[in-house]
Amino acid sequence: MDKDISQAVIGRLPRYLRYLGELKDKNVERISSSELSAMMKVTASQIRQDLNNFGGFGQQGYGYNVDFLYSEISKILGLEKQYNFVIIGAGNLGKALGGYLNFEKRGFILKGVFDQNPKLYGTMVRDVKVMPMEDLPSFIKENDIDIAVLTIPKEGAVLVSKVLVENGIKAIWNFAHVDLDVPENVQVENVHLSDSLMKLSYNISSYNKNKEGSEGGEAFV
Amino acid sequence: MDKDISQAVIGRLPRYLRYLGELKDKNVERISSSELSAMMKVTASQIRQDLNNFGGFGQQGYGYNVDFLYSEISKILGLEKQYNFVIIGAGNLGKALGGYLNFEKRGFILKGVFDQNPKLYGTMVRDVKVMPMEDLPSFIKENDIDIAVLTIPKEGAVLVSKVLVENGIKAIWNFAHVDLDVPENVQVENVHLSDSLMKLSYNISSYNKNKEGSEGGEAFV
Repeated sequence: MDKDISQAVIGRLPRYLRYLGELKDKNVERISSSELSAMMKVTASQIRQDLNNFGGFGQQGYGYNVDFLYSEISKILGLEKQYNFVIIGAGNLGKALGGYLNFEKRGFILKGVFDQNPKLYGTMVRDVKVMPMEDLPSFIKENDIDIAVLTIPKEGAVLVSKVLVENGIKAIWNFAHVDLDVPENVQVENVHLSDSLMKLSYNISSYNKNKEGSEGGEAFV
Repeated sequence: MDKDISQAVIGRLPRYLRYLGELKDKNVERISSSELSAMMKVTASQIRQDLNNFGGFGQQGYGYNVDFLYSEISKILGLEKQYNFVIIGAGNLGKALGGYLNFEKRGFILKGVFDQNPKLYGTMVRDVKVMPMEDLPSFIKENDIDIAVLTIPKEGAVLVSKVLVENGIKAIWNFAHVDLDVPENVQVENVHLSDSLMKLSYNISSYNKNKEGSEGGEAFV
């Protein structure tokens, strides 16, 4: 059923889940696509299209059952399972990601943190001790680790990704500023922070240009 | 010229810039779209299409001039200017973002860090002292701040975004897990980390399902 769904649609599902979670918290039982549309500021037709990818869930004249839709989207996103993860890199970003309690609520369990700096061995990230990189391969196998989070510079990230792949990692959440070359059975999700910052500078500069253009009172050509 | 270019294309430009930067570092002077395609693992036709949005830059039989293309894309992304930014929230994520020297190389200059925790006042994020939130409005105006980075929980982020807008901020880089409601002259770029993590769990679980399906030897139906 959920083959061939575009990554764009998948990318929008967590946002649906977030809004539905807020509705659940407010004990809202059902919602129409037009109400959801107003809240989320996307068109009702986009919402219907997105959810139709998974069989719809809506009923004419009734709308969506919030609890049901929430739990179906959770299942689609694979959130009914538990994922064990390790963080490679015990710097500020690694510590920030290790500290997010929301990840644990979603079933992502922090099992280990690794760093190559001996000064950090034994220091704590939340309730997990930082371990030396040499221990990483055996740790992945013995602790059934699904996901590795890479918060190290790009040269290290490329090397470590090979070690991870050799030891059977299923997925890499990559914060290093490099594209990783891994086999197709290993899922990679990149968070390239400076790419995101450049989108912002584009939008600032493009907005200013358009404003200057219109304020200049140029005739339409 | 660069009106109405889709955010998807804009979103891909920083990646072009990254690869072109690496080529520049290796003193490569020109590259064909097919070579670039092989490096970046996107089709040559996608590359030509993307770059045609901005007038092309390529010459038949010559390929792209690396330096020229790098500097043109930099300009398109608004990177020829300097942007002053502040970080709201001096936790681990704020510290991580404040510490990225690469941002400064791109022209994003950290001017101030703010937090509501008095214990953090005066502590340092890189070479910048953490200041109380009360000082934020005047600081934005007096220091010509373009961008505010929000690394605080969602309730705070909504309140602070209003203060930012009232004081003339141009853009918000939002790491809080909430959509901000700001006027259209304020640019927002969201980094919703748990959304990204859920895409990963989707891809792990979807890959497993497809594998089970094919290993099960089911007939095509």
